[in-house]
Amino acid sequence: MTTELVHGRPSTHNDGYPLNTTTLMRHAARTYPEQEIVYRTADGGWDRYSYGDAWGRITRGANALERLGVAPGDVVGVLDWNSRRHFELYWAIPGLAAVMLQMNLRLGPEDLGYVTTHSEASWICVDESLLPIAEAIAPHTQGVKGWIVMSDKPLDQIETSLPDVHHYEDLLAAAADTREWALIAEDSAYSACYTTGTTGRPKGIYYSHRGIYLHTLAMVALIGMSSEDTTMFITPMFHGQCWGLPQAAVQAMTKIVLPGRYTMEDTSVLVDAMVAEEVTVANGAPAIFGPMLDYIRTLDPRPDFSRARLLSGATEPPLSLMKGFHEVTGADVIHAYGATETTPLVTVNKGLKPSLRAVLSDDEKWDMKRRQGLMATGVDFRLVDGDGRDVPFDGVSQGEVLVRGPWIIDSYHAMDDDTRFHDGYWRSGDVGTIDEHGYLKLTDRLKDVIKSGGEWISSIDMENHLMSHPRIREAAVVGIAHPKWQERPVALVVSDDGGEVPIEDLHRHLAPHFASWQMPEQVLFVEELPRTSVGKLDKKVIRAQHADLYTGEQP
Amino acid sequence: MTTELVHGRPSTHNDGYPLNTTTLMRHAARTYPEQEIVYRTADGGWDRYSYGDAWGRITRGANALERLGVAPGDVVGVLDWNSRRHFELYWAIPGLAAVMLQMNLRLGPEDLGYVTTHSEASWICVDESLLPIAEAIAPHTQGVKGWIVMSDKPLDQIETSLPDVHHYEDLLAAAADTREWALIAEDSAYSACYTTGTTGRPKGIYYSHRGIYLHTLAMVALIGMSSEDTTMFITPMFHGQCWGLPQAAVQAMTKIVLPGRYTMEDTSVLVDAMVAEEVTVANGAPAIFGPMLDYIRTLDPRPDFSRARLLSGATEPPLSLMKGFHEVTGADVIHAYGATETTPLVTVNKGLKPSLRAVLSDDEKWDMKRRQGLMATGVDFRLVDGDGRDVPFDGVSQGEVLVRGPWIIDSYHAMDDDTRFHDGYWRSGDVGTIDEHGYLKLTDRLKDVIKSGGEWISSIDMENHLMSHPRIREAAVVGIAHPKWQERPVALVVSDDGGEVPIEDLHRHLAPHFASWQMPEQVLFVEELPRTSVGKLDKKVIRAQHADLYTGEQP
Repeated sequence: MTTELVHGRPSTHNDGYPLNTTTLMRHAARTYPEQEIVYRTADGGWDRYSYGDAWGRITRGANALERLGVAPGDVVGVLDWNSRRHFELYWAIPGLAAVMLQMNLRLGPEDLGYVTTHSEASWICVDESLLPIAEAIAPHTQGVKGWIVMSDKPLDQIETSLPDVHHYEDLLAAAADTREWALIAEDSAYSACYTTGTTGRPKGIYYSHRGIYLHTLAMVALIGMSSEDTTMFITPMFHGQCWGLPQAAVQAMTKIVLPGRYTMEDTSVLVDAMVAEEVTVANGAPAIFGPMLDYIRTLDPRPDFSRARLLSGATEPPLSLMKGFHEVTGADVIHAYGATETTPLVTVNKGLKPSLRAVLSDDEKWDMKRRQGLMATGVDFRLVDGDGRDVPFDGVSQGEVLVRGPWIIDSYHAMDDDTRFHDGYWRSGDVGTIDEHGYLKLTDRLKDVIKSGGEWISSIDMENHLMSHPRIREAAVVGIAHPKWQERPVALVVSDDGGEVPIEDLHRHLAPHFASWQMPEQVLFVEELPRTSVGKLDKKVIRAQHADLYTGEQP
Repeated sequence: MTTELVHGRPSTHNDGYPLNTTTLMRHAARTYPEQEIVYRTADGGWDRYSYGDAWGRITRGANALERLGVAPGDVVGVLDWNSRRHFELYWAIPGLAAVMLQMNLRLGPEDLGYVTTHSEASWICVDESLLPIAEAIAPHTQGVKGWIVMSDKPLDQIETSLPDVHHYEDLLAAAADTREWALIAEDSAYSACYTTGTTGRPKGIYYSHRGIYLHTLAMVALIGMSSEDTTMFITPMFHGQCWGLPQAAVQAMTKIVLPGRYTMEDTSVLVDAMVAEEVTVANGAPAIFGPMLDYIRTLDPRPDFSRARLLSGATEPPLSLMKGFHEVTGADVIHAYGATETTPLVTVNKGLKPSLRAVLSDDEKWDMKRRQGLMATGVDFRLVDGDGRDVPFDGVSQGEVLVRGPWIIDSYHAMDDDTRFHDGYWRSGDVGTIDEHGYLKLTDRLKDVIKSGGEWISSIDMENHLMSHPRIREAAVVGIAHPKWQERPVALVVSDDGGEVPIEDLHRHLAPHFASWQMPEQVLFVEELPRTSVGKLDKKVIRAQHADLYTGEQP
């Protein structure tokens, strides 16, 4: 497509009417005021109110914040679990044309303090249970005018060393329950979320009203959500605006379930709520769905989740997880791919196209289900090679995934980072293929892919195939600098018996899947692979250890 | 909401990336290239091609039009049935940042000529079967540079008196099948459609790319369309961009069925296609769904349309039609309300909210189904009384329906008509109520509603109740000017037996439904009611005949 905008004839549509997230909640509250929102309380009990009730509290919340001095463009932080108050702030803060700062409570105090200061947050709403975190970051923040504690207890029963403390419920009680809402310019920031890379400072992503609004419409259409659904937010609401599910649930006017605080160790809260409230849509990741499935297997009778669609992000869900949920509960685990920078919807693998369903075997269907899926409408995408040239969508050619569109960022907040943008597209850093049916399959991270003789070799693919050899337990494949071929693949492997497997055996084993030029001509047998503190392969260390392997050598 | 735009903090989203309809079709063609489009040919047969094939022809079409000189802002008219070429032009013309002019072949040659000239159309694509219409309007047009005939026959076998004739298929064959598509400013006009009021010249409505794009996303979400669906366009594609269904079908990547030319007298073509292609979504109106149901009743076995959603616009569908389809075929007739000025989605009555389904009786459910339904997300709405004040959503208070939003017009093209706009809202001219559950129920046209003592009385409501009296066959109620009460209702009735019914009887009959001040104190028995040439009650004539009934009188 052209990069310059082409102008046609003027329209008679009301093109100046802005897309505002506020209108989504207002619309839902006056169209389905009686729809239920079920929420977990601080004492672990459950309670419920309605969209109409929530809108009343959202209105009071916005009025209260305004009275505290919050003005358009100001930033208000939220430090909370998946609570009803958090849900209310999703609408009250942006409704003022202020920015809701999502505070990731898993970050260390220094990073969280940095995020607060970098975003210039002036007020922070904090759940009582998270006061210790707030107190820890307070010394690292500048410019915070006050803290709003959210609790069912009165203020005088809450102990905290924070200065300038207000009480959310007191503020709401004192505020008016009507309001003339602002018509907000659609390119205004709605919320801010900071990514947490392994290197460098967190980077700020400021979602616009326009981007969120369009993401919401696309998501509802893609997932097929309606008021027949009940949605539970499992993904923390302080992560990438909970992947857009709160807004989608409201647009579709589904019943909503807010599970509050839960732990990986006790997922029964989530499963029991799914059963009790007949949840049909939820979001999460293999790290939480796995323990949930373990718990479900202990139940008798097994719950019936046959209407449920579990949106699974973060990483590719294991086949055992998808099959397990399907076989035990009937639930459909749907893999979706995206990033904080993409709001996050890029692809969704929901159901198989009718045209493929008719011709694939069951194994092939499961294999398709593991892919990242089809690109969402609204996401313009390319696959490009190392020279920035487009590669064909043939299911074989690998390229880095580049995306652009209304809900994809085109910069980081107050930070120059040109390495992640190309011609208006955001560079995902993920390498993959798109087949002739449109399905994206990620094969590697760009930094791990092996660039040899102008072509790319997927390190992950090769590792998986090496590990499928009967005598190989673990494998790591890295690209090592090579004077002629740029890089050549080198494999580090751990064998089952501590012995070595002849390289010819491994080549024969890899031959059905790799061309001869892709073969690792060096296989190093080691006792264990270097791993990071959280157990991930540390390829940076491996590359450093073998950096000069080919210096002066020919393969 | 405020009328002034409020600006917040800048976002890092790509807010300048425009919403273009072209990207919808391009996305579908590369994400689901094998999806089928089934179309009827000129000889009444059926053929099929794919989204990928269609995209190739759309690309050639755009290149061909560009080669003829069509530039951004130019207008290209289309005069065609629901054909595959019409479908292609839905994308090829706007893809050039040109405007697709929808030419309503039911208009007279003078009006159609006016529309062509008023829109400054430079090229017109016409189906061979409609050449007589094109030839009739040609003398009434100015500025048309040439005519593009669409036919399976070669050009030398087509007889026409039109000057400057090209052949669609020849143009496509000579054009390139790749193209760098324009990135079009989203407020550019996508298509133009002229309303055909009973008075005055047709008024031009120019839909923007932005408006259509947003309407599409909202429609897909609301109807719940997906690639599991098969969509048939029954509504003519020259009417209000076929109510947005072509764009919605493409966004959801459904299979598409294009029935070509059909007549009210032979709806078997439509029904047989629904059976053969397993259609699940179609649009139309009672005028066509009625004859379709009549034909279905002659079939043995009865077709199973239990997955089908029939979107019914234009007028409220009779209960017998909705029930008939449900009982005979399982199909769900869904009433949707809108106008050419609203793209048209304003309300949809799809399914009943779970909260109501649980408590209403069957009769109450059917009664709810007759209403216009719930407002679509994205449509900001008000009900206002005669003084422009908002009336409550209580199911009783009547007001004119005012709507605004991205797919609602805020002006007519090159024409001043301030009477239809109020504070950014488009005045629908329809009067109705919205109940506490959000359901709109239209009660009257604003011009027919009786304004008495500052309150409104629905003429249609009163007519229906009068006609439910056992001795009354027909009734017309109009407001007649009154010196004290502004207007008072006067009823003209036709009795079954030609005799008169005592007015006290009629008041008793109306008493459960109307307050005493709403009662018509004048009931005039007549032999027949004045009607227009198409059989509609001619209230203008009735009002004129009795205009001075109350002059100087007190009720």
